[in-house]
Amino acid sequence: MRILLVGAGGTLGSAVGRALLARGHKVIGVGRSGGDLIADVTDPAAVARLYTEAGPLDAVAVAAGDAVFRPLRDLTADDVVATFRGKALSQLELVRQGARHVAPTGSFTLVSGIITEEPIVGGAAVSAANGAVEAFVRAAAIELPPQRINAVSPTVAQESLPAYGPFFPGMDAVPATRVATSYVRSIEGSQTGQVYRVW
Amino acid sequence: MRILLVGAGGTLGSAVGRALLARGHKVIGVGRSGGDLIADVTDPAAVARLYTEAGPLDAVAVAAGDAVFRPLRDLTADDVVATFRGKALSQLELVRQGARHVAPTGSFTLVSGIITEEPIVGGAAVSAANGAVEAFVRAAAIELPPQRINAVSPTVAQESLPAYGPFFPGMDAVPATRVATSYVRSIEGSQTGQVYRVW
Repeated sequence: MRILLVGAGGTLGSAVGRALLARGHKVIGVGRSGGDLIADVTDPAAVARLYTEAGPLDAVAVAAGDAVFRPLRDLTADDVVATFRGKALSQLELVRQGARHVAPTGSFTLVSGIITEEPIVGGAAVSAANGAVEAFVRAAAIELPPQRINAVSPTVAQESLPAYGPFFPGMDAVPATRVATSYVRSIEGSQTGQVYRVW
Repeated sequence: MRILLVGAGGTLGSAVGRALLARGHKVIGVGRSGGDLIADVTDPAAVARLYTEAGPLDAVAVAAGDAVFRPLRDLTADDVVATFRGKALSQLELVRQGARHVAPTGSFTLVSGIITEEPIVGGAAVSAANGAVEAFVRAAAIELPPQRINAVSPTVAQESLPAYGPFFPGMDAVPATRVATSYVRSIEGSQTGQVYRVW
C-alpha cells in the first residue's frame, strides 16, 4: 500500500515507518521540518497542499501531535487552543480532506493516548484533545465506509521515559515497536471505529 | 447555593433552572442574548467579564452548546472549528477560569451527549467536541479537588423531537426534567470525574 505517515520522524513515527516498510508498504513520511513531504498539518491549507503533493493513497496514519502539558491552574486559554489544534483539529482535518483523496477502501489511523481514560496531572488539555479524537473515530466510522478509521491509544513509550517517565508514575511503558503493531492492525485489518489501546 | 447556569434559556437549561430553583438554590441564568447575565462564552474575555459580574459562586452548570450537525463529507473546516469553540473550548474555558472564582468546595457540571458513544450521521464534529468534554472532566477531576467536576450526557430530549427526532432513529428520548435531575445530582452530590448518562 501507499501510506502517508504524519509525524514520521518522531519516536513513535519512526517505529511505525519501520514496521510498515517491513510489511512491504511504500511510506511517504511527513514532518513539519523534514521528511519526504513537509507540512504543518494544523493549517487546513497546508493539509490541502499535502494531499495534492502526496498523490494516490491507500492509507493515512498519524503518529504525532503537538500538545501542551501544564497543571490545570497554570494552563492558559492559548495552551488549550494550541493543544486542540495540534492534536485534535489537525487529525480531524486530515480525515475530513483525506476522505476525498484516499482510496475507496483505504483507511485512516489516528493517535490518541492512555490519558483519555487514565488522566495524569498536567494533562487535562491533552486528555480533552484525545477524547475528541476517539469520539470522532467512532462517529466518522459510520459515515466513511467503505473507507475505515481507527485510533491507536498508546501509553508512554519506553523510549520516552527519560523525558516523560515522571508524569506516568506506576504506569507501564511499552516499546514503540509494540505501538507500531497496532498501526499495522488498523491499516491491514478490516475493523473500523476502533480505539486500539496499547498499555 | 448560588449557581451560574449557562444556557439557561434553552430547552434543557429551562428545565435545569426550574429543578435548581425547586431545590432552593439561587440561579443566575446566562444567555447569549438574554438572561440575568449576557455573555458569549466562546470568547475567553467574555467569560472573564461574566465571572466578575456574577460574584461569588458555589457552582457552575452548562446546559447548552453550539454545534454544527452536517454529514462528514459536507462538513467544512470552519464547521469543525465552530463546533469545538461552541461546545468544547467554551466549557473548558468556563472551568479553567472558574476554578479561581467558584467556592473551594464548589462544582462544575458540563454537558456532553449520547453521540459521544452512540454516533449518528451528521454528528461527527459534535461527537468529537463531546468526547473532549468527557475526557476533560475525567482529567480535571484529579486536579480540581476539593472542587468537583462532572458531565451530564443526555440523549435527545422529548421536547426536541420535532426538530431532532429524525436524527435519532430507534433511540429513546427522555423529558428534559429527567436530564435536569442529573444536574442536581452533580451539584448537590459529592462525586467528581463522572459522566452521568441520561438515556
